Amino acid sequence: MQIGIIGLGRMGGNMAQCLMAAGHDVVVHDGDAAALERLAALGAEPAQTLDRLVECLTKPRVVWLMVPATAVANVITTLSPLLRPRDILVDGGNSYYRDTHYRAAELAEKGIAFVDVGVSGGIWGRDHGYCLMIGGADAPVTRLVPLFRALASGIGGGIEPKPSGNDMDTAGEGYLHCGPPGAGHYVKMAHNAIEYVIMAAYAEGFELLRHASHEQQNSGERSAFCDDPQAIEYDFDLAKIARLWRQGSVIRSWLLDLASESLNVDPSLTAYDDRVADSGEGRWALRTAIETEAATPLLAQALFQRFTSRDHGRYANRLLSAMRNAFGGHGAG
Amino acid sequence: MQIGIIGLGRMGGNMAQCLMAAGHDVVVHDGDAAALERLAALGAEPAQTLDRLVECLTKPRVVWLMVPATAVANVITTLSPLLRPRDILVDGGNSYYRDTHYRAAELAEKGIAFVDVGVSGGIWGRDHGYCLMIGGADAPVTRLVPLFRALASGIGGGIEPKPSGNDMDTAGEGYLHCGPPGAGHYVKMAHNAIEYVIMAAYAEGFELLRHASHEQQNSGERSAFCDDPQAIEYDFDLAKIARLWRQGSVIRSWLLDLASESLNVDPSLTAYDDRVADSGEGRWALRTAIETEAATPLLAQALFQRFTSRDHGRYANRLLSAMRNAFGGHGAG
Amino acid sequence: MQIGIIGLGRMGGNMAQCLMAAGHDVVVHDGDAAALERLAALGAEPAQTLDRLVECLTKPRVVWLMVPATAVANVITTLSPLLRPRDILVDGGNSYYRDTHYRAAELAEKGIAFVDVGVSGGIWGRDHGYCLMIGGADAPVTRLVPLFRALASGIGGGIEPKPSGNDMDTAGEGYLHCGPPGAGHYVKMAHNAIEYVIMAAYAEGFELLRHASHEQQNSGERSAFCDDPQAIEYDFDLAKIARLWRQGSVIRSWLLDLASESLNVDPSLTAYDDRVADSGEGRWALRTAIETEAATPLLAQALFQRFTSRDHGRYANRLLSAMRNAFGGHGAG
Amino acid sequence: MQIGIIGLGRMGGNMAQCLMAAGHDVVVHDGDAAALERLAALGAEPAQTLDRLVECLTKPRVVWLMVPATAVANVITTLSPLLRPRDILVDGGNSYYRDTHYRAAELAEKGIAFVDVGVSGGIWGRDHGYCLMIGGADAPVTRLVPLFRALASGIGGGIEPKPSGNDMDTAGEGYLHCGPPGAGHYVKMAHNAIEYVIMAAYAEGFELLRHASHEQQNSGERSAFCDDPQAIEYDFDLAKIARLWRQGSVIRSWLLDLASESLNVDPSLTAYDDRVADSGEGRWALRTAIETEAATPLLAQALFQRFTSRDHGRYANRLLSAMRNAFGGHGAG
Repeated sequence: MQIGIIGLGRMGGNMAQCLMAAGHDVVVHDGDAAALERLAALGAEPAQTLDRLVECLTKPRVVWLMVPATAVANVITTLSPLLRPRDILVDGGNSYYRDTHYRAAELAEKGIAFVDVGVSGGIWGRDHGYCLMIGGADAPVTRLVPLFRALASGIGGGIEPKPSGNDMDTAGEGYLHCGPPGAGHYVKMAHNAIEYVIMAAYAEGFELLRHASHEQQNSGERSAFCDDPQAIEYDFDLAKIARLWRQGSVIRSWLLDLASESLNVDPSLTAYDDRVADSGEGRWALRTAIETEAATPLLAQALFQRFTSRDHGRYANRLLSAMRNAFGGHGAG
Repeated sequence: MQIGIIGLGRMGGNMAQCLMAAGHDVVVHDGDAAALERLAALGAEPAQTLDRLVECLTKPRVVWLMVPATAVANVITTLSPLLRPRDILVDGGNSYYRDTHYRAAELAEKGIAFVDVGVSGGIWGRDHGYCLMIGGADAPVTRLVPLFRALASGIGGGIEPKPSGNDMDTAGEGYLHCGPPGAGHYVKMAHNAIEYVIMAAYAEGFELLRHASHEQQNSGERSAFCDDPQAIEYDFDLAKIARLWRQGSVIRSWLLDLASESLNVDPSLTAYDDRVADSGEGRWALRTAIETEAATPLLAQALFQRFTSRDHGRYANRLLSAMRNAFGGHGAG
Repeated sequence: MQIGIIGLGRMGGNMAQCLMAAGHDVVVHDGDAAALERLAALGAEPAQTLDRLVECLTKPRVVWLMVPATAVANVITTLSPLLRPRDILVDGGNSYYRDTHYRAAELAEKGIAFVDVGVSGGIWGRDHGYCLMIGGADAPVTRLVPLFRALASGIGGGIEPKPSGNDMDTAGEGYLHCGPPGAGHYVKMAHNAIEYVIMAAYAEGFELLRHASHEQQNSGERSAFCDDPQAIEYDFDLAKIARLWRQGSVIRSWLLDLASESLNVDPSLTAYDDRVADSGEGRWALRTAIETEAATPLLAQALFQRFTSRDHGRYANRLLSAMRNAFGGHGAG
Repeated sequence: MQIGIIGLGRMGGNMAQCLMAAGHDVVVHDGDAAALERLAALGAEPAQTLDRLVECLTKPRVVWLMVPATAVANVITTLSPLLRPRDILVDGGNSYYRDTHYRAAELAEKGIAFVDVGVSGGIWGRDHGYCLMIGGADAPVTRLVPLFRALASGIGGGIEPKPSGNDMDTAGEGYLHCGPPGAGHYVKMAHNAIEYVIMAAYAEGFELLRHASHEQQNSGERSAFCDDPQAIEYDFDLAKIARLWRQGSVIRSWLLDLASESLNVDPSLTAYDDRVADSGEGRWALRTAIETEAATPLLAQALFQRFTSRDHGRYANRLLSAMRNAFGGHGAG
């Protein structure tokens, strides 16, 4: 079927290729001319403007957004007057599910269906198949199934249609209609909350391994407060251990596979920034936890750790030192 | 080669089968006669006593313990006088790496090699291959390689010997000599620390999903302090979402596979205890974090959450209520 | 000066008395007739309706709300048409500072000044003096100073006017103009965030004391994983220790005074609920931390602990048990 | 009565003065000659060596150690052969209660009583009176009461003996016999655990205040993920707010008094180190929490925050960045 894709970054560009490989007709738009040309060279129909993109599509249209959360509102404002009843607009980015909820209601008044798709898999999704968490009304979601199948199966994968398909089966195929508008982004948000904590889990585990070595034993406090510090003297090879854990251990996972590959290339990880960015999903998830009374202390910790990594904790630390100094400091208590 | 195995619980029993399937000669001992018979029926040589087990083995012997951490000291006390120089004693259970460190030093004085093997994979290791984290001196570890290969490859798997094997290759095969005595148990401890946090990560994520539903909106606080609570109204199918996430998502993992299987059988999980046990590894890891100045706040949270699940937090909560009441309570501040 | 007070709960009723004791003219309103009578008996002018209250006040009026955060919007809707330019409306409750920000802007369009006052001190403020955190425009805040002084000094206290007063001095007197509208509620929110964590600090400390006793040593895990459990055998008297810490210790505080009084009356605290309520301030503070990238992991923990105390953590715990069981359970790792 | 004091740091030196002011006879020893002279000038009998100190004291002697936890073992080794049955040795420093437990048992075999005293109050204790948490056998503790009274009352305070004293009364006077040997240090450990968390509570609260200001709004993430960032624009005066909160607020405390004084002198706190030291008490407390199954997640967080402040978290952060990059980075998810 025919689809327009807006946003040809790492995710959007790969997904366009995946859809073309599965035989779909893809019209693409991006502000970056180079990205547009690259996709055109691969067989997509380039559209310099949103108007042009809409013109290229046969009604009822399917337009799929793969743009940053902060750009979605503007694109919808420009695009929605160009769309017609029965057109489907898909937000495949990481938007806040509440925004999606309100946007769907507003577009529904114009007869435009708004479908949200949380897409997981990163740059590897093109080959392995994306994991698609879908929110929206039944009819438009059903219409989009051929696209979901193409994306979920990986490039050229082509999941064979099953005779007696039901919802449970689609989960096993990598896509699921999770509920009404916003449901897809909500499930993606929970997914990213889990992702934050799992990443922090491995980071803590590798810290435990690193701190077993002598190099880390530079602190006066340590030798004073550790029973028999000589009993901790291991010089572990982190890259090998990561590789080992991928083989049959309880903690094997795809994120461990990624960590292992990174450690193989550079065990000291000096190329990477120790200020860790965050994309907003963790913030939305924590805010939702507060609002729904779901206790997620580990998510909170993982998110705040990223804030602190960007140096925001310094003043707090100086205040601790100031108080310690004020009551007598170092061990005075 | 020939090996004696002491302890035929879920782990030890499966491992014995795995070794026999790979053609090794296995002598077994367990206090539980039924377990002993079961293994005898599968081809192992049963030994009613430790003395008998030692007698059955040709020198230099290999004896592998698969007993609870709390039983290891006693078994070693009984066993070590029966062993001779060049014998190898393996502790394949979850012992504290410091205990292992001291035990190895003590046994070394008698010429007995003590090798520690952290074994991951649970009851599934028999079929999928175990993940083996090994500590000990080079010579005995090298002697044990055929056993490691059999265990790491899964039952009947039989990893083919590689011509130019090196350490890095063995990590890829599922076993690794990580360092001197205690190193295996240390790496297993870090592994379990990660396991605690990953499990808590999924638990938090599924809580976020559950709390999106109306059933959870019973609290007066929630409706008062959530912006537009009507915007959170999803009734997610947790089993399907778990199944979905296994397909290509960033958070796919073996623990998610297990969670998914459990949710498939019973999405309400009513069969499971909400008091979560802990096996000691998390405690050792947290203690080690303190001693080595490795920051592991998520591990701490995951461990204390288990303590609290066993009702130990009640008094603390009553004290909070008492203070709130004392200064004026409910919102008085 | 003259003031109308709406809301005669524990806070509002006490504050009315405080203002009368300082010689101010107080008109009061509350939906609860008994509360109205009680204040009338103490010398306040009762007003059965908001209309009546407004009538009783000389222009430009001062009306002070002491109602729950969830009631503020409705009261303002009813009240604001009755007010006139130059009237001052004060919100002395625990409102979310963003709501206050928007309300002030809206009322300013009608010429009505909106002043927010975060009030701390609980039911003890009447006698000890309240701590007042004030937001609003300069002119109305200045006009209210006589009221602030009366409240901050405690009943009958009467802080003497100082000849060369400046802002710093007023902080020392217990009230401070902290900034534009919303500033008072923001500072109160930060105050309550601190309060949550301090309360949890004492709760943890007393748990450490309780767990030193034999009664707490019922767990199999404990005896297995604690070095020499016999070395922990103290049977502490918590009430005495709380009392002791009030005398010169680094951790002396007013909240400790309250905890100590509660423990004196009933060291087992059986009268108190182990489900701890929350009033919303903690949620707003955590949400603000997320939005402003301020790392507050302890606040998150303290808030989620309250959620968990209300049993919301049970499902998460069952999921942990399910996963443990799935991979082999108790110690299998 | 007569007492020998070993260790004339900030705590020991002040306590010696306090005891002399109350009329006690004080013999002092310290490796630092200047400290020794200073105390001698104030009226103490200086002893250049431990032998000399012991000689100066009349049997049965009282020797009080005020040395770092790491020095206690050596001092006892040197000192104990010089002491005689019925002598009392006091450890007034921050020792680990388990060490105290074992030391008391060993000294008891020689007839020497070992009394542990957790001393709180910092450098201000001299004037305000120290808070004394005491462990030991009844007889020696009773013999030391005149010293406890002098220290607990502050310099020159002189608590009048009460006719019908009981234990509860002594808590009100600032000293308490908490239990057998180690009990004093255990209670001090719990005290310090609380101290860690309270300090972190204020640090978080002041961070919330700081982050309300425009200066903190430099981050792209913030403007993207905060609803209406313009609604957060307060430029708070932290020193004034700290001062305000000391007046009648629920969170008033002695640590707030200290924070307020520090902020008065330098609101930017630039003089203080953002790497926060720790004295060991927090580590012992967390380890004890693990061993006794007392859930203390806030203590864990406060302690690990100090570790992280000393830069130990950097590798963990780089690993997070590496994983984010591996799966597609910034928002790819």
